[in-house]
This record gives sequence, C-alpha cells and structure tokens, in this order.
Amino acid sequence: MLIKNAMIITMDSNRRVIKNGDIYIEDNKIIKIGKSLDIKDNEIIDAKGMAALPGFIKTHTHSSMTLLRGYADDLPLMKWLKEYIWPLEALLKPEDCYIGSKLACLEMIRAGITTFSDMYFYMNQVAKAVEDSGIRGVLSYVINDIMPENFAGMTATKRFLNQVKKSDRIIPIIGPHSPYACSKETLQKAKELADDLKTLIHIHVSETKEEIEESKKKFGLRPIEYLNSIGFLDSNLEIAHCVWVNDDEIKMLAKNNVKISHCPVSNMKLASGIAPLKHMLDNDLIVSLGSDGPCSNNRLDMIQEMKFSSLLQKVSLGDPTVIPAEKALEMATINGARALRLDNKLGSIEVGKLADIILIDLKKPHLTPLHNIFSHLVYAAQASDVDTVICNGKILMRNRKLLTLNENEIMEKAELAKEDLFGRK
Amino acid sequence: MLIKNAMIITMDSNRRVIKNGDIYIEDNKIIKIGKSLDIKDNEIIDAKGMAALPGFIKTHTHSSMTLLRGYADDLPLMKWLKEYIWPLEALLKPEDCYIGSKLACLEMIRAGITTFSDMYFYMNQVAKAVEDSGIRGVLSYVINDIMPENFAGMTATKRFLNQVKKSDRIIPIIGPHSPYACSKETLQKAKELADDLKTLIHIHVSETKEEIEESKKKFGLRPIEYLNSIGFLDSNLEIAHCVWVNDDEIKMLAKNNVKISHCPVSNMKLASGIAPLKHMLDNDLIVSLGSDGPCSNNRLDMIQEMKFSSLLQKVSLGDPTVIPAEKALEMATINGARALRLDNKLGSIEVGKLADIILIDLKKPHLTPLHNIFSHLVYAAQASDVDTVICNGKILMRNRKLLTLNENEIMEKAELAKEDLFGRK
Repeated sequence: MLIKNAMIITMDSNRRVIKNGDIYIEDNKIIKIGKSLDIKDNEIIDAKGMAALPGFIKTHTHSSMTLLRGYADDLPLMKWLKEYIWPLEALLKPEDCYIGSKLACLEMIRAGITTFSDMYFYMNQVAKAVEDSGIRGVLSYVINDIMPENFAGMTATKRFLNQVKKSDRIIPIIGPHSPYACSKETLQKAKELADDLKTLIHIHVSETKEEIEESKKKFGLRPIEYLNSIGFLDSNLEIAHCVWVNDDEIKMLAKNNVKISHCPVSNMKLASGIAPLKHMLDNDLIVSLGSDGPCSNNRLDMIQEMKFSSLLQKVSLGDPTVIPAEKALEMATINGARALRLDNKLGSIEVGKLADIILIDLKKPHLTPLHNIFSHLVYAAQASDVDTVICNGKILMRNRKLLTLNENEIMEKAELAKEDLFGRK
Repeated sequence: MLIKNAMIITMDSNRRVIKNGDIYIEDNKIIKIGKSLDIKDNEIIDAKGMAALPGFIKTHTHSSMTLLRGYADDLPLMKWLKEYIWPLEALLKPEDCYIGSKLACLEMIRAGITTFSDMYFYMNQVAKAVEDSGIRGVLSYVINDIMPENFAGMTATKRFLNQVKKSDRIIPIIGPHSPYACSKETLQKAKELADDLKTLIHIHVSETKEEIEESKKKFGLRPIEYLNSIGFLDSNLEIAHCVWVNDDEIKMLAKNNVKISHCPVSNMKLASGIAPLKHMLDNDLIVSLGSDGPCSNNRLDMIQEMKFSSLLQKVSLGDPTVIPAEKALEMATINGARALRLDNKLGSIEVGKLADIILIDLKKPHLTPLHNIFSHLVYAAQASDVDTVICNGKILMRNRKLLTLNENEIMEKAELAKEDLFGRK
C-alpha cells in the first residue's frame, strides 16, 4: 500500500514533519518514507490535503460501557456508582460486553484511535470485538475482591488468558482494579502473574481525594506510597488517573518508571480533580491519554482529550504556555505507545514500525487557513475530520466509510441490548 | 415548510420535549408545532432519528479572526497580543474581514449556530458576509481610544450605522471595546448613542486578573464597580467574559439586569481564569455562551462551549452535579436570545417565533444508545452531527450540504487572504 502526498506528522524523536511525503507499507509494516517514492503498488491512497499521523493510542477505557452512555450524568460520584452503575453491571451478560465494546470500536475507529487499553468484565467478548473490527486492543480482565472470583477475580483472569488468542492486535495484560478494591494478597498475586507472563499491569490509582483519605486511614499511607511499600511499582505498571499525587509520589513513580494514563475529561466530569500533568511531565514521567469509560466522558475521542488536557492545565496553572499542542499530540501517540511498552512497534510513523496510520482531512472550514499543523490538530480538529484509518496495515475506514464493521447493524443491536439490560432491572 | 417526525427540544419555559413531532413554518415564522400535523406542504423535511433544536446563539466572537487561527498559540497573553495579533490587525484590509467572517459563517452554519454577536473592525464587511450566508448577526463595530478614530472610533461606528442595512438578520449594536481601552468619555458617548438608538452595548470586562489590578490602580475601583459608578450598567448591556467578578459585583450586575457572555474555552486557552459561572446563575444573572475569537479557541463551536462550561465548573467546584446538561443547553439557546434581547423572537421552538431551527442527527455511534437527549447533546455530540440548519425560515444547510455558500471557494480565498496579509508584514 502506498500513501501519497500527505503532510506526514511522524512523531519520531525529531518530531519531523514531511510536507508532501509518501509512505510505503508492506503487509503490516512501514517499509519506506520519503518524497515522491518511485514504487509501483496496486493500492494507492492519494492523501493530498491530508495529514498522516500515527493512529491515536488510548491508554485507559472501559469500552463495553457505551451501553450506559448518558444514563446517569450530573450525579454525585457515589450515588452514580452505587445506585446507577454497579446495579446494572451486576446484570451484564457476555453478549452485552460484545456489542458494547463493538460499538466502542466503531466510535474509536471513526475517531482515529488504532490502539486502546481496556479494563472490564467478559474480556473475551471484547477480544472478539477487537478481532472483528480490526483495531488493536490491550486487554485486561478486571480483578477485584468485591465481586465473585469467577466473575471478576484471578479465576476469571486466568480463564481469559487461557481462552484469548494472542496476536499483534490482541495483547492480554493483567488488570487489578485498584488498591482499594483489591487486597494486598490479590495485588501481589496479580503482580506475580504479570511478572511470570512478562506483561503489563493496568490499575486505577489516586483518582479521588476520598481515595487518598481512605488509604491513609487503612494503611497509614497514601495510595502510591502503599503500592511502593508492597513492591508494586515498576516499569510494567500503567496507572490510570493519578489525580491526587504529591511531589514525593511523583518522584517515586518516576524513579520506578511507572506509566500514567491521564484522563482529563473524566476527571472533570466526575469532579475528581485536576491532575498535576505539567509537574508529572517535568519530572520525566511518561504520561499518555485515556478517555476512561464512555459513562464518565461521554466520548471515546482523543482529540477532545488532547484539547482538554492542554486547556485545563493552562487555566489551572494560569499559564497559557504549558502543554503546547505538540506536547498534547505526543501524549496521544508516542507516549501512549511508551505507556503500553509498544513503542518499538507503535506510536510514530517510522520505517520498521507497524502500519497504524490515520489520515486527517485538512480541507475543512475550521482547519482553514493553515498556520501551524499541531495547533490545528489539537485545538481545532474534531473526530469527524479523520478520513482514513489503517491499523496493522489494513484499512479499517476510508473516506469515512467503515470497511470492517456494519455500522447500522451495530447501532441497532446496541439499542436493543440496552433495552434488554434495563428490562432485567 | 414542514419538519416531520423530529424529537423536538423546544427549550420553551417548560423545557418541553416532543418525542415525535412536527413543526410547520411559513415564511420566516413557526406557525404550528404538534404531533402528526395534517398540513400539505411542498417542502417536507423528514427528521426521523433527528433532534430539532433552536439554532445555537453565540453571544461573543470576533469572526474575521479566522484568518489568524492557530497562528500564535501557547504564548503568554501580552506577547501574543502585542507581538503577534495587534501588528497583523493593523494591516487588515476590508476584504480580509469579508473573507475571514465569511469563513466563520461557513464554520458556524456547519456547527448549527444561527445567530452570533460579533465585535471587530470593518463591520460593514461582516454584514456583507452575514447577508450572503443567510445567518443572523448582531454586529458591533469595535470602538477604542488606541487606534485612529476613523478605523476604530465613534466615527467608524457611525459610518457603519449609516451604511448598514438593518433587517431581521442584521442587527447593528454598539461595541466599545472595554473599560481599559476606552476613556470614560468614550464609554459615555457610546452609551448615549445606544440609548438614542435603543440598542444593545457589547463590551469586554474583567477578563484577566491584570485588568482588575490596573482598574484598581487607575480608578480605585474594580472594572464592574467603575462601570457602575459612571452609570454604564443596564439591561441593554452584554458583557463578555466576567471571569474576575466578586460577590458584590455579581449582585451589582444582577440588580441592573446586565447580560453575560461566558467564554470558557477562550478563558482556559489564554489562562485568563475560571469564571464563577454557577454563582452567577445562582444569582439569576442571564449567562449565555460565546466562543471569543477563533484565535483563542480555536473553534466556533457551541457544543464544545457547552461541554467545557459544564465540566470546568464541575472540576473547579469539586461537584459533578453543577451545570447539568440541560442548563448548558439553556445557555447556548434561550439565554443567548435573552442576552441579545431577542427572546421574543429567538432561542426556543415556539409558535410565533422566527424559524431558526437545527436538526441534529442522532444515528451516530457516539450518540448510541439513547438514554438522555440533553446528556447526548452536551457531552457526546459534535459539531459535525448537525445535519440541517434553518435560519429565518430558509434552509442554509441540508444533509450537511451548504446551500448558500460555496465552501471550496471560501476556503481557497481565505488561504490566499492569509498569504496576502502575511506578505504585508
């Protein structure tokens, strides 16, 4: 496959932008990048007037929750969880998670997301949706000590790991929910398993102020300090949120090369707080972006996360220069790959990397005129500007037409699944 | 014209939602609203699967600045203004403002905005763009004491008022820039003129902390106190920003029935601060939404303003229940009409009002399934979900096809105008 005449935003270590460049792809790999490549190929994509970017990498979500999108907004956090979300989650069937995550894959492909890190129940169903849709999923079956072992414990995780077919596109990892929903023993068992399998751990930590207070009461330590005390922090750990982390904790995280998934829209919508994003980046922490679940957002859209991440830091620090557009794009691409320890394969357009490439159509009124491509991508673009999505060398969307998924069928089935789920209440 | 089978979000005083309703329009007015209206009409719009809303009303922008969109982002405010924006504005030609504001009209129509309140130079050119595009403009020629009288003073304003052809769609008002850019005498002259013509005044006040300090030094009063002391506050005053207003000032504004244009994205991007939005609404102030200029945003998109306005208040007040979705939609529609004193004609879908109606396509993955229409419109929708735009009874966009504007020609001319403008540097 040959992509021609694109403005290539490589996101390589020099952040090189090639104004009118070509990208040659064989199978699932980028083979050549340059100007006017003299290559004959049957499949040519003319990308004139478009920007070619590495596909967006979203490092934290619960994709099946699309079924509950907009169901319970503008509520206090605990009421939202206890009265609305948890009672419904207890009623979930495997097929709900299949259609819910398939709907999420559809929305993510439309928004230029080629890799996502997911944590939820019935993860084998999410794997099936990932398989069908052609996207790339880093999948963790949630582990907690609240629900039955067979539904959300080590047993469920091990069953998932046995069943799932690992591939370039389906990467199972371990997902203990949080230090407040998992005992020390559970966390340690999860870590042992991850160490054995040489795989990532995905966890929620320090999302709310209440969580900090609870941890201090229970352990005499803040959550990050507690995880440090039990030897949980290392370079294979990806933590979602980190809203309430102090200087010492940031240094602790940096020292252990822990990766962060910052979720600004969710943190704002649930009023969790404002993460010290600039401070984390200043301390050389690898911070990537997540959307959290569609219930607390309510989108799966990395362009929104980029804009919110930058603007929230600017206003909260009173400094319009912080998190410039290029830094936001870095978080949404190469930092996402680094967070998932896939930066040898993903996150930038470079020879030898896997072909996860999106084309963004710049011929839009709101992207006119063009002064600075980074500004446009972060502050002015919208998900619907994504024209073409290539994941693992395969085209998933072209001219905004889905090639792997039947959009209307998925939307109808999701609406029916919602009705069925609420009928079980 | 007959719109059939829409989910009608009336935004009337009961916030009535009609699940499967019809709207009958004659000329530029809404004549009938109901279920299965038995009316024969040549022009029928089938709005099945769509929400019908009053067109969005944006109460503060500088539309011609599209030409500078993305030109100078992530910079300190004063450096941005003094080194980048002002030197270029001094070089503006009338035709720049025509093409710049026409590009803005194009973007606004695409985003479902049917009325906007604009303040800038060469306002007769903006009026021409409004005339051509079919949108509704409330237009103020900026008045300041910094630039030549003939370019940005009372002389320019009077010339504009003499030249402009007033209509249902072109409503000239008076636009003294701010209490720091206008002397007391200029403000008073502007107010006299507005009183004579029984028209609105549009002004910037209390946008930054520095402005407050400067005002205290110069007048011994905070900006709102100062305006109050010179008799400037009344129900015909629309103030953009009001970020730094204290309790006393909020009461002063409420007592005088002053209208506010809240611009959250701009306030965040320029790091101006977080306006006390909830507090202003709690004090019965009429707060509407603006985008500010496309340089400090960089979009002209009311759905973004709604989402940012709600989420920023939630996180800054630590309360996820504040500014619920319906309140945000209220600010973007009926409160906009009230701010511009056009609520007898605009801002809701009601019999007798002018036909400014937009249709939002709900058959989208990110709007599936449907639990709560207000949540979807504020937290999940995006500008590109706007399918059809009717302003003053005339269709401006249908199935996302522009009917009054030549999109490609405008984008090309805007790019050329940008190059020409920068060539003059």
